Amino acid sequence: MAPRSVDVPSLVASAREGSARAVARLISLVEDGHPALREVMAALAPHTGRAHVIGLTGSPGVGKSTSTNALVGALRERGKRVGILAVDPSSPFSGGALLGDRVRMSDYALDPQVYIRSMASRGHLGGLSWTTPQAIRVLDAAGCDVVLVETVGVGQSEVEIAGLADTTIVLLAPGMGDGIQAAKAGILEIGDIFVVNKADRDGADATVRDIRHMITLGDRTEPGLWRPPVLKTIAAQKSGVDEVMEAIDKHVEWMSGNGTLRERRIRRAGDEIESIAIKALRERMGDLRSGHGVEDLAAKVVDGQSDPYAAADVVLAALV
Amino acid sequence: MAPRSVDVPSLVASAREGSARAVARLISLVEDGHPALREVMAALAPHTGRAHVIGLTGSPGVGKSTSTNALVGALRERGKRVGILAVDPSSPFSGGALLGDRVRMSDYALDPQVYIRSMASRGHLGGLSWTTPQAIRVLDAAGCDVVLVETVGVGQSEVEIAGLADTTIVLLAPGMGDGIQAAKAGILEIGDIFVVNKADRDGADATVRDIRHMITLGDRTEPGLWRPPVLKTIAAQKSGVDEVMEAIDKHVEWMSGNGTLRERRIRRAGDEIESIAIKALRERMGDLRSGHGVEDLAAKVVDGQSDPYAAADVVLAALV
Repeated sequence: MAPRSVDVPSLVASAREGSARAVARLISLVEDGHPALREVMAALAPHTGRAHVIGLTGSPGVGKSTSTNALVGALRERGKRVGILAVDPSSPFSGGALLGDRVRMSDYALDPQVYIRSMASRGHLGGLSWTTPQAIRVLDAAGCDVVLVETVGVGQSEVEIAGLADTTIVLLAPGMGDGIQAAKAGILEIGDIFVVNKADRDGADATVRDIRHMITLGDRTEPGLWRPPVLKTIAAQKSGVDEVMEAIDKHVEWMSGNGTLRERRIRRAGDEIESIAIKALRERMGDLRSGHGVEDLAAKVVDGQSDPYAAADVVLAALV
Repeated sequence: MAPRSVDVPSLVASAREGSARAVARLISLVEDGHPALREVMAALAPHTGRAHVIGLTGSPGVGKSTSTNALVGALRERGKRVGILAVDPSSPFSGGALLGDRVRMSDYALDPQVYIRSMASRGHLGGLSWTTPQAIRVLDAAGCDVVLVETVGVGQSEVEIAGLADTTIVLLAPGMGDGIQAAKAGILEIGDIFVVNKADRDGADATVRDIRHMITLGDRTEPGLWRPPVLKTIAAQKSGVDEVMEAIDKHVEWMSGNGTLRERRIRRAGDEIESIAIKALRERMGDLRSGHGVEDLAAKVVDGQSDPYAAADVVLAALV
């Protein structure tokens, strides 16, 4: 089936005028890897770079959706336009099914200044890293002041989210072993702000102490470096959310003041460029494989007439 | 530190004469990604293609080491030379530490016809797929009749092992939910032989039935296709091992008879060539990034003067 043709200029114009439908269509193009993406991204480029990207990650059960909801409330009180990308690295599905749940869960499902989208991070090629940055770009160009990327902390996804966000919030809940889990998963290095949610539960203070202690042990207390605050919230009661908002503001201020923000964004764009280039090379490689070029070489390797390095040289020459 | 220079011809000659020390050194070169690897692989090439590669995978606790031990016993009774690669996808360590345990566990630690090596599958770039095929190549060229690759069934690793092996054995143990786990992890598709170990435990027959049932439900019962047998063993008592050996023989016979063996090996060599080529491209990409070429483009993207696709085109042109 040939992909449906897309009127990119009018789609981008509609998205910029606030059409949720146009935004949805653009993100679907991203998810589908549609051929029109090149044109879309070129059209979006002049309008990007304004949104503050906040990553929110945490293990299942720490209250990510409730916390997102509470944060969106605080952002809406400030009059901010918000885009939410709920990325599920374990789901092979995107869009529809999950979105239904999300919409029911959110107080802001009907707010025209809030755009909510569930995304699957399909494929093994780096989970979040392929589609999410482009979806962020769509929401940014569509005028979102803040793009909130929420992902469950599973495997690599929380490290990846830190690569995508200006500010990364790591959510925890009181309970045994949280500290150790944190250290293990490497979240100490990625969190700009730590939030212990469900702070009315036993052990909240101990978890806060654990995290603070581990941050002190780490190398993140040098002068001039950002020292991540460790805050407590009860998101279901919207308690502690103002302090989180304050911490976000301070982090933005710190990043903007010393050039970290620009640095992070340049690194992020570099990662994006790299992943697009690598994807293009992999596609060319796929063509070489289906066109039997690689297979003939592989047969020589199997027969002991060549070796994988020599064969790879031939493939590289053909790619180039 | 400049890598120690390597006398490749004499190292390869020693490995082919049965020196465990030379084999160890060659596999270390593989693990280190040593610059001499090209020369090593070229020198090994004419001597490869003889070993039968058996993959053995299963969840923790199903008795992989005991089963490996029992299989090696049966292979030794037939006078076969055996190489064992124990790949731990979760370990950041390789060689030494784990090897000690493995050696203590094995009845064949002192048998000069058995080579045992623990390998870490370092890095996120495809787990097993990078170093393991080259280590297999070393053992193959060193005269191993069988190379047994043992890996714990975690995440992608069991699917990857099937890509590396001529014959993949999936180990299970009796117990609730095994069947469902099997279906989830996709092992039904990858197993050439299923073995329910610890068959003296309750539920062994039920697990066998479950797996048989799921194989029947799958698309693996068409005429001419291999229908994976589901066997029972008590590896600790070496019970049922003869039946596994028989199944392996039958699988080899089936694969050789209809060209599947050659087909699998060609696909495997193709994967290896591709991963070497992609690695080389990533290294060139790394050079472009550290040389600021990508960074300058990324800054333009951040400033809205370019978009990631246009920038990727420039990078691709520079790579090529």
